[in-house]
Amino acid sequence: MANFSTQPVSSPAVPAALTPAELDQLQALRHTAEHVLTIAMTRLYGPEKVIMAMGPATDDGFYFDFDSPEDFKISEAEFPKIEKAMAKLIQANLKMVRVEVTAAQAKILFAHNPYKQEWLSEIEASQQPATLYLTGTTEQVEADQASLKAGQPESLKSFFDLCKGPHISTTNEIKAFKLLSVAGAYWHGDEKNKMLTRVYGTAFADPAQLEYFLWQREEAKKRDHRKLGRELELYFIDDLVGKGLVMWLPKGTIVRDEIEKLVREKEQAAGYVRVVTPHIAKEELYLKSGHLPYYKDSMYPPMVMDDGTYYMKAMNCPHHHRIFGFRPRTYREMPLRIAEYGTCYRNELSGTLSGLLRVRALAMNDAHIYCKRDQIKSEFEAVLKLTQDYFKIFGLENYWFRLSKWDSAHTEKYINQPENWDYAEGVIREVLEEMKVPFVEVSDEAAFYGPKVDIQFKSVIGREETMSTIQLDFLARERFGLNYVDETGEKNDQVFVIHRAPLSVHERFMAFLLEHFAGAFPTWLAPVQVKVLPIADRHNDYAVEVAAALNKVGVRVEVDDRSERLPAKVRDSELQKIPYMLVVGDSEVEAKTVAVRHRSSRDQVVESLNEWVTKLKAEIEARS
Amino acid sequence: MANFSTQPVSSPAVPAALTPAELDQLQALRHTAEHVLTIAMTRLYGPEKVIMAMGPATDDGFYFDFDSPEDFKISEAEFPKIEKAMAKLIQANLKMVRVEVTAAQAKILFAHNPYKQEWLSEIEASQQPATLYLTGTTEQVEADQASLKAGQPESLKSFFDLCKGPHISTTNEIKAFKLLSVAGAYWHGDEKNKMLTRVYGTAFADPAQLEYFLWQREEAKKRDHRKLGRELELYFIDDLVGKGLVMWLPKGTIVRDEIEKLVREKEQAAGYVRVVTPHIAKEELYLKSGHLPYYKDSMYPPMVMDDGTYYMKAMNCPHHHRIFGFRPRTYREMPLRIAEYGTCYRNELSGTLSGLLRVRALAMNDAHIYCKRDQIKSEFEAVLKLTQDYFKIFGLENYWFRLSKWDSAHTEKYINQPENWDYAEGVIREVLEEMKVPFVEVSDEAAFYGPKVDIQFKSVIGREETMSTIQLDFLARERFGLNYVDETGEKNDQVFVIHRAPLSVHERFMAFLLEHFAGAFPTWLAPVQVKVLPIADRHNDYAVEVAAALNKVGVRVEVDDRSERLPAKVRDSELQKIPYMLVVGDSEVEAKTVAVRHRSSRDQVVESLNEWVTKLKAEIEARS
Repeated sequence: MANFSTQPVSSPAVPAALTPAELDQLQALRHTAEHVLTIAMTRLYGPEKVIMAMGPATDDGFYFDFDSPEDFKISEAEFPKIEKAMAKLIQANLKMVRVEVTAAQAKILFAHNPYKQEWLSEIEASQQPATLYLTGTTEQVEADQASLKAGQPESLKSFFDLCKGPHISTTNEIKAFKLLSVAGAYWHGDEKNKMLTRVYGTAFADPAQLEYFLWQREEAKKRDHRKLGRELELYFIDDLVGKGLVMWLPKGTIVRDEIEKLVREKEQAAGYVRVVTPHIAKEELYLKSGHLPYYKDSMYPPMVMDDGTYYMKAMNCPHHHRIFGFRPRTYREMPLRIAEYGTCYRNELSGTLSGLLRVRALAMNDAHIYCKRDQIKSEFEAVLKLTQDYFKIFGLENYWFRLSKWDSAHTEKYINQPENWDYAEGVIREVLEEMKVPFVEVSDEAAFYGPKVDIQFKSVIGREETMSTIQLDFLARERFGLNYVDETGEKNDQVFVIHRAPLSVHERFMAFLLEHFAGAFPTWLAPVQVKVLPIADRHNDYAVEVAAALNKVGVRVEVDDRSERLPAKVRDSELQKIPYMLVVGDSEVEAKTVAVRHRSSRDQVVESLNEWVTKLKAEIEARS
Repeated sequence: MANFSTQPVSSPAVPAALTPAELDQLQALRHTAEHVLTIAMTRLYGPEKVIMAMGPATDDGFYFDFDSPEDFKISEAEFPKIEKAMAKLIQANLKMVRVEVTAAQAKILFAHNPYKQEWLSEIEASQQPATLYLTGTTEQVEADQASLKAGQPESLKSFFDLCKGPHISTTNEIKAFKLLSVAGAYWHGDEKNKMLTRVYGTAFADPAQLEYFLWQREEAKKRDHRKLGRELELYFIDDLVGKGLVMWLPKGTIVRDEIEKLVREKEQAAGYVRVVTPHIAKEELYLKSGHLPYYKDSMYPPMVMDDGTYYMKAMNCPHHHRIFGFRPRTYREMPLRIAEYGTCYRNELSGTLSGLLRVRALAMNDAHIYCKRDQIKSEFEAVLKLTQDYFKIFGLENYWFRLSKWDSAHTEKYINQPENWDYAEGVIREVLEEMKVPFVEVSDEAAFYGPKVDIQFKSVIGREETMSTIQLDFLARERFGLNYVDETGEKNDQVFVIHRAPLSVHERFMAFLLEHFAGAFPTWLAPVQVKVLPIADRHNDYAVEVAAALNKVGVRVEVDDRSERLPAKVRDSELQKIPYMLVVGDSEVEAKTVAVRHRSSRDQVVESLNEWVTKLKAEIEARS
């Protein structure tokens, strides 16, 4: 079967990663670009319409917040005009110069601006000088510096703003910029304050960087999992059910089930056993695990029942520890690998919830491995290899490993088991070396209770994120009294726990996959794998026959028997990103064939129905 | 493959079911048997050691609660002696006669009994006469009646107890009785009161009924799902996690997963789609559905979050209704069958929770079917047939149907849609008739919002219970604004909902299956399907080879490679109720065969490994 690519069209050249110094410089450049925007808008519309409030540089660019009279509104339609004015200011190669004045002097300069007055009152109270940045020609700036020294702040010639910087020294270091959007924003981000207008923009020292940024941004919009989730009917979030609570629609449930099926197969082969544990537990369990009281704010509020206080579970480990300990264990049972597609609950603030990336109920392909000390290495290796295996199946390649270790100079931050830290970090490093995978080591970044390995990803649109973590745990055995009867017949409390969820949180992984595939799931994952498109109504019977043959071997197939013209049917099937269309007309009916068309291609290949079904089935079974 | 029976050994003759009048008579007989027990014990041990508190008849027999001095304890070892004394009293054919006296008179009779004094104070306060039952020979009773009339309560000759009855008139109507157990019980069931001693017994008018009862009781003990659940390591309930919350252990999870797999297959073939919905929802959802405020006491306590109040779900329907309504629907999508293996939460009192039968978190093979009016009949039929199909697979045969209808004379109790009631009840009756299944119709037992069909079961030990309910719902469309665009292009609000969970609640169904199979699950459901038993250590390698061949085709297999003798290995495998043992010794190693032994048989049949694997696989796939 042809291996049609599900990757995006090639991106512009990926710019080299910036050094920390270059990143600082970029922040200064963007901050200056924001001043340029402020000057351009003030000049175009007048300071009585653009009442400057604030404007910082951000990781993506910059923004500028301002107040206006009721009747003045700015829209993206104005951007070309503003950008033109900005370009002129940049070309004019204006200087950016920092000066210090007293807060009292500054209050005169900003006499008509209540926002700056508010800042200045704070500065005044702190008994610090106020920092201004002057923007203008060499002559203007020098003259202004002299005026300020002379205590004549009313007569400044250059543009000035209350600002701590840093800035670049001249505006023409900005080699590329673009305004991006307009939005509303509350003063100080507080909804009790006035709503201001915010203009977003970005700027770079290199036009190629802007080009890549804009490509990434467009691509991210197209691949936005919220947009795709809605269009492909995978899930929805219902205000009546609650924010951050995903309702998986039938098509989303198919994808979820396919992933779970894969996981079950792989984990069964890897010697895991599966359990199902309740979504709630008594307060006492979380006091034992130590999640209470420390983690309480992240947990759902308590429910007081007639026999005690209950919490929705924020993690599966305490339940699994109890299953390990529900009866005495022997060395013959170790390592015991307890897996569950469990759901955990986190009390995130409602305002922070967003699509699948930030939710309140998270399903996890979770497992806890209970092993002896001399099994840590082989178990870590097995988990890493299983994770690689998953990633290969999903076509994910751009990842590396990160080993977080303790710091023996800061032992107060870590559980006091130096021999275990040294041993475990040693064997994990050995595994990573033997596997010949790219990895970095970072000291003093381990959890309190053990070292971990993070798997870092570069997404298809260039974002870096941690996909999964494999965490070793020296503490659980103490808290839960975990032990086993060893080969000598003695009770042995050296039980080490590995926490692992290679596919991250299901919701987050789905968002990642949607972005990665731009919604065009590989055939084995696709909610509908094949759409049969009869050319005319007289071909409907054969279309149903074709669908039945596919359905019989477990293929997810639909027939588009609407009385629409073929191009409309093809378009709808492509919008739904269905991997295969089977066009059937007179010749296909006669010859018992199908004209196969892949979503990524305009070609149609006529094949014998039976032969094609066999090939498709092989493709699905191979998850290729 | 031989079809080994998983049914119990045959029971004694099942007595005919009792009429309501016979049941009342049995209650009176048991109450009398309790008095006989009281007399026997008082005479054997003396009234200062057996201080009578109370003793009613129950559905299973009767019990007697009494107080004693610290140094007097009764045990089951005493039962033969007490039963002998009871038999004598019964043979004496004593009369039971009801008399009324004033509370004041009665207080004199029970001068030394604080428990009776407590009852009598209540009677006194209510200004009612006290009712006594006299038990004795004709002469004794008549003399006592005279004494009481004469106001001489101190000199009674017969035994007497404060009691409202009813009783049978002479003790020798008790044709069979047996004492069953001793337990502690708090006075008035309140743990703040004194712990009394309780003796349980039972009695019948027919010795055959006692024989059947005792058989049932023994069988129920052997088949007790709590005992089997522990022995077979299917689940456990952890006080630290909470009462009524089932922790499914690996073996229990396999059974659960097998059932869920069956359900997925069958429902997929029947045109259901699957969804996954959150376990919680906002208050507003349950206000819309009407569960709040009416059902509030059965729901878990509310959780107040930053954006409103949340509840754990007590049912899946509101979530499914929202999925139906998440976007406009058309007639082409109807019927829409939305299925979920969803978990619901009920706030049962902790004291009422018991094993799998009464839990707080219940997983359901749930679904809701959204259909047009003219689809009600075919959908009901499909659901009933699917249910029959399930029951056949599980080998459940002893069931019948019960159609609960409204009562047009009591329209105030039902939703006001007379034409829908008549139409729906008519088509459901047609379905039951056409299916030629046993069914009864009962008026005035429907839910407020529509008629239902219950499926009634007689369990393997003779208990009758409702397994599943198929409920039609005329109300959901109003509450949730459900509608679709019909064939004419108009919005149509005639959406009928069928609620169905053919396999009941998973926890309850598991308890039922455990009892039904006495833990000996059919091969397809068994957590371990095959145990390979090498006769000596030198056969271990071949045993592993055999296991690998089975594992390769998905059979759940274990090797017992302990250095134990074969009979011990066989016994352990039988205790775990593993369907097949494969004994391998020298001749099996040589000939690549296995000696197959079923758990229900002592015979061993030598078969070629490959041929047997093929047969076993077919048995598992056929779920036979």
